Amino acid sequence: MKFSFKNDYSEGCHPNILQALLQYNLDQQAGYGEDEYSLKAKELIRAKINSKDSDIYFVSGGTQANLIVISSVLKPYQCAVSASTGHILNNETGAIEATGHKVLSIETEDGKLRPSDIIPVLENHRNVPHQVMPKMVYISNSTELGTVYQAKELEELSAFCKQNHLYLFMDGARLGHGLTSEISDLTLEKVAELTDIFYLGGTKNGALIGEAIVINNPVLQEDFAFNIKQKGALLAKGRLLGIQFLELMKNDLYFDLAKHANQQAMKIKHAFQAKGIKFLSDTYTNQIFPIVSNELIQVLSERFEFYVWKKVNEEFSAIRLITSWSTGDEAVNGFIGIINEEL
Amino acid sequence: MKFSFKNDYSEGCHPNILQALLQYNLDQQAGYGEDEYSLKAKELIRAKINSKDSDIYFVSGGTQANLIVISSVLKPYQCAVSASTGHILNNETGAIEATGHKVLSIETEDGKLRPSDIIPVLENHRNVPHQVMPKMVYISNSTELGTVYQAKELEELSAFCKQNHLYLFMDGARLGHGLTSEISDLTLEKVAELTDIFYLGGTKNGALIGEAIVINNPVLQEDFAFNIKQKGALLAKGRLLGIQFLELMKNDLYFDLAKHANQQAMKIKHAFQAKGIKFLSDTYTNQIFPIVSNELIQVLSERFEFYVWKKVNEEFSAIRLITSWSTGDEAVNGFIGIINEEL
Amino acid sequence: MKFSFKNDYSEGCHPNILQALLQYNLDQQAGYGEDEYSLKAKELIRAKINSKDSDIYFVSGGTQANLIVISSVLKPYQCAVSASTGHILNNETGAIEATGHKVLSIETEDGKLRPSDIIPVLENHRNVPHQVMPKMVYISNSTELGTVYQAKELEELSAFCKQNHLYLFMDGARLGHGLTSEISDLTLEKVAELTDIFYLGGTKNGALIGEAIVINNPVLQEDFAFNIKQKGALLAKGRLLGIQFLELMKNDLYFDLAKHANQQAMKIKHAFQAKGIKFLSDTYTNQIFPIVSNELIQVLSERFEFYVWKKVNEEFSAIRLITSWSTGDEAVNGFIGIINEEL
Amino acid sequence: MKFSFKNDYSEGCHPNILQALLQYNLDQQAGYGEDEYSLKAKELIRAKINSKDSDIYFVSGGTQANLIVISSVLKPYQCAVSASTGHILNNETGAIEATGHKVLSIETEDGKLRPSDIIPVLENHRNVPHQVMPKMVYISNSTELGTVYQAKELEELSAFCKQNHLYLFMDGARLGHGLTSEISDLTLEKVAELTDIFYLGGTKNGALIGEAIVINNPVLQEDFAFNIKQKGALLAKGRLLGIQFLELMKNDLYFDLAKHANQQAMKIKHAFQAKGIKFLSDTYTNQIFPIVSNELIQVLSERFEFYVWKKVNEEFSAIRLITSWSTGDEAVNGFIGIINEEL
Repeated sequence: MKFSFKNDYSEGCHPNILQALLQYNLDQQAGYGEDEYSLKAKELIRAKINSKDSDIYFVSGGTQANLIVISSVLKPYQCAVSASTGHILNNETGAIEATGHKVLSIETEDGKLRPSDIIPVLENHRNVPHQVMPKMVYISNSTELGTVYQAKELEELSAFCKQNHLYLFMDGARLGHGLTSEISDLTLEKVAELTDIFYLGGTKNGALIGEAIVINNPVLQEDFAFNIKQKGALLAKGRLLGIQFLELMKNDLYFDLAKHANQQAMKIKHAFQAKGIKFLSDTYTNQIFPIVSNELIQVLSERFEFYVWKKVNEEFSAIRLITSWSTGDEAVNGFIGIINEEL
Repeated sequence: MKFSFKNDYSEGCHPNILQALLQYNLDQQAGYGEDEYSLKAKELIRAKINSKDSDIYFVSGGTQANLIVISSVLKPYQCAVSASTGHILNNETGAIEATGHKVLSIETEDGKLRPSDIIPVLENHRNVPHQVMPKMVYISNSTELGTVYQAKELEELSAFCKQNHLYLFMDGARLGHGLTSEISDLTLEKVAELTDIFYLGGTKNGALIGEAIVINNPVLQEDFAFNIKQKGALLAKGRLLGIQFLELMKNDLYFDLAKHANQQAMKIKHAFQAKGIKFLSDTYTNQIFPIVSNELIQVLSERFEFYVWKKVNEEFSAIRLITSWSTGDEAVNGFIGIINEEL
Repeated sequence: MKFSFKNDYSEGCHPNILQALLQYNLDQQAGYGEDEYSLKAKELIRAKINSKDSDIYFVSGGTQANLIVISSVLKPYQCAVSASTGHILNNETGAIEATGHKVLSIETEDGKLRPSDIIPVLENHRNVPHQVMPKMVYISNSTELGTVYQAKELEELSAFCKQNHLYLFMDGARLGHGLTSEISDLTLEKVAELTDIFYLGGTKNGALIGEAIVINNPVLQEDFAFNIKQKGALLAKGRLLGIQFLELMKNDLYFDLAKHANQQAMKIKHAFQAKGIKFLSDTYTNQIFPIVSNELIQVLSERFEFYVWKKVNEEFSAIRLITSWSTGDEAVNGFIGIINEEL
Repeated sequence: MKFSFKNDYSEGCHPNILQALLQYNLDQQAGYGEDEYSLKAKELIRAKINSKDSDIYFVSGGTQANLIVISSVLKPYQCAVSASTGHILNNETGAIEATGHKVLSIETEDGKLRPSDIIPVLENHRNVPHQVMPKMVYISNSTELGTVYQAKELEELSAFCKQNHLYLFMDGARLGHGLTSEISDLTLEKVAELTDIFYLGGTKNGALIGEAIVINNPVLQEDFAFNIKQKGALLAKGRLLGIQFLELMKNDLYFDLAKHANQQAMKIKHAFQAKGIKFLSDTYTNQIFPIVSNELIQVLSERFEFYVWKKVNEEFSAIRLITSWSTGDEAVNGFIGIINEEL
């Protein structure tokens, strides 16, 4: 059996979660998110973000979170803007458009949006009422390219959004990885302060399922639960989500798991760097994109699974390696061993 | 702590499922339902329904299953018809309409639809193109009132649908309970033979989450996976659904759990009947609706939780009691004890 | 050629409109409703409703007006309530649901809604967030049954809506007929005062196309034009709508035409009444529903077209007769002549 | 009053249409497009396209035609592809997305799509089921840049679409201008042969309102009328559309009007060319984009209205001039006079 670096959702969940599921299994609880585990987990999150008035809802996955948030926030004629690499643009089968909303794509180098990227879009959408009205800025942290936002960048973007009456929404499917990146100076508390709405991804960071949507802007809080139910995202056994986030939030397990994933990726990155290998993008999270020879790809493929991401020329391609909360040293060292042998 | 008869999703899941989650936890698997557990579970279901060409998809919950199926099957101008008690009409926050489709409501006594109920609706919707076109018949088994379809009833309904070019869709959120009811002569194989599409509910029968959508009509199979993804229902860790259905399908655990729930409800029903108590509807599944005095309601409420369902007169109301796969004898006997003492 | 009493849109338009179209034909004007005729017509309407801050938009037809208004006003999880006879429920091919919104149907005798009709619906929709939230009351005046609202009725309904945070929307496809009915004490000014939004129907009252949406509630005015454009209702040559409403509003032509239609219907009604004929509903507008024998239907059908509306028994059926702004005395007298001969 | 070259919908309609409206005004006709004028107009179109089995529907405007066609043809998970200049991408307030469908944008130089433009999009959308499925190619002729498709180009595109199971839809808001361009070798018959569905635009070619949707592919014909009604596009007085197309189709008035518009534009184009002026794009229809100095813009603006389309540098900008069926020689010669004086 080859070890897979294809993604961060190949395994089940962190053992603490399974233990808690076992422990609480036969307790009778209210349904639909009113169970005591969900309520406690939300309190823990509110404490960590230092925002006692934020509303929190748990849903199953990222596409679900994205479509519920965006369709809930926007009026029919309003649209979101996203970096061209945005998950909502490329990998969600038109889920946002299926709720009636356009997403405008903005080309960027590193998967991040800055005010200067957004200004031209606003300027090109002023032919009222013949064009959609940009009303939400969608960003991911870490991004789909593995890059991260710094505190100053998010502050500038947040201020720009406020000035321009745009909502700022952060897709946090890999928020743990973004915040625990060795180069990040951004904190969860800061994210809550600077965004109107964001989510903490569990699925890619040790949970079986689960994203925690955090609504900071009171305007967006009203009646939000209806949207969850209407889109089929309200689990009868909401306890499944509550128990998971309760465990992840206890003792900062959530951040420890993400940091571990990042560190394992960085080990491999350094091994490549030591051999002079270049990367498609300069990442400090759990995704790396080394550009390697076809020969090396073949050798690595004998013992490991990963995606060949982008052909660079006839002899070289970028590969994508993703580590997770559960990626052990054995796999990492085995992989590095091949690098050191072959390069 | 009072014991709750409020619903069949108050507890976690059957212990076998947790054991399997533990056992397989660190195996690396493909994402998005391509894991080996999901593939095996689908094979087991196909074997049980004796329909090797049926397509099967796992999703998280009933509202999600309903909205995906209906929006996938219908063209924009087509609608579903449902008994007025249908879950899609009353308890899904307009989830079906949110996908663009009307649901026509048909009054019935017992929550079941018969051809004679549907004929007038078809006759009243022939003013082309000024009216929606009825194209799908939505039924539940067991129904929201706890009643069940017999084989002959489903055969007649199925034949009627075929003659009238209507798709027949069975909401099986409580299909286990419907099929294992002591009065039911319907089998899972027969359900697959007679419906175009149906689902096997896991959430209300021992799973943490999960409904298995089974598509029998080849016309409805094409590209169905896109709809699952677009509506945010495709779990990255599809293994969570696969493992659960694998356990439920092994050795007919699914049916054993439902039968147990039904039997516990019937014990309470018989205790009421022995005292001459009447019921709101004549049910043989895990839901019963005895009509009892306000005094008895008060006494029972001291030790048990349940919904007061419908006020019958100043002195009497129907209560709803629901049992589940995990309802033990202690609770049932305790409840019966009060009946015997008080009546 | 038989004369038709089938509807009020069988002919073209009032000659004044064609004259104005000819007169202004080659003037160059701004597109999309910014032409001077549209601007003047809106001023005239604002003056007549005595509400200078109301926003006004012209669209082509009733279904278009209904779907734009409702989808613009409601959030995704909110719904409208309507009398079961409402046009949006029966004759618009699910147009409202196609924009994502449910419409709850309320049974009424006469096609009108009163607070007492709506209260039970509100009470049955309080299971948050499992049910749609009623947020708009949709009424028609005159109704689909030809009945009309009196000032007191509309005042009570308006007050009830305000208390319950419901928007009140009046479908005025036949508002002219409703307001000029001999029994109506309601005025256009009062309609504007008591509703959040309504429209003045042109199509059924002498225009080629055209309904004038009047938005009185400032909350509903914001960005409304985007909805018009997005739903494909913004005519490049908005002048076509502007010129028509300009003519209809001048010298109260709009009301004169409707009054004429009503009077022609009343003449026929009185002829039937003089012979002791009963009616399906007691109407004072341009629709009447006399219950006549099959023999009489056959005789009338030789010279006139009309709909047989509802079979009452083996020998009698209600027929629907509709008169319009252009129904002349010759047709009316010819029809009455047969009544007098045959009965 | 300045003469406007801003668009081709500033005036009313061709006098023949008004004459016909007057002539037929009081004839009673069936509603909703079943009037005899609509039926005759459809027969005339079928004869001209030499395709007796094509289905034809009249709607009011281009955005309406586009959203009805696209939402009718595509399944929920399917999308259209369009040149980045496409009207549906830029100038319809997200009308297509509001029906649930994404539109993929393809950069092109001249507003036209070729197979080589589309192939990369198909190749980048094969991650089933995580991406929308391209299923329709949307093109405009003449395009939004005033360019036209030649017969060979459309043949190649049509063959490519068939091979790749894509529907080909031509937006013909300015189809008359495209086909009567002095460089076009394409015919209306050929358009019908090579597309699955297209429309003949009336609004920008002498009608008050009106586009004629022509459905050539039988698969797309089924139940199409329901979509028209559901989207609010079915006029009660369909005669208004029927009469207009009847007049436009008689004696090829439709093509004569478009040819006139083209010729007037070409006169101005030649006047600019004679002075060595360059153009933003090389057009042969009723839109031209000369690049002129700010000084000239100012002088021309004193007597004419037009859009400054794109700033080229500090001293020069492209302006957009549009002529129409009603642009007379006086205006054209007056404009040319200034060119000749000033350059």
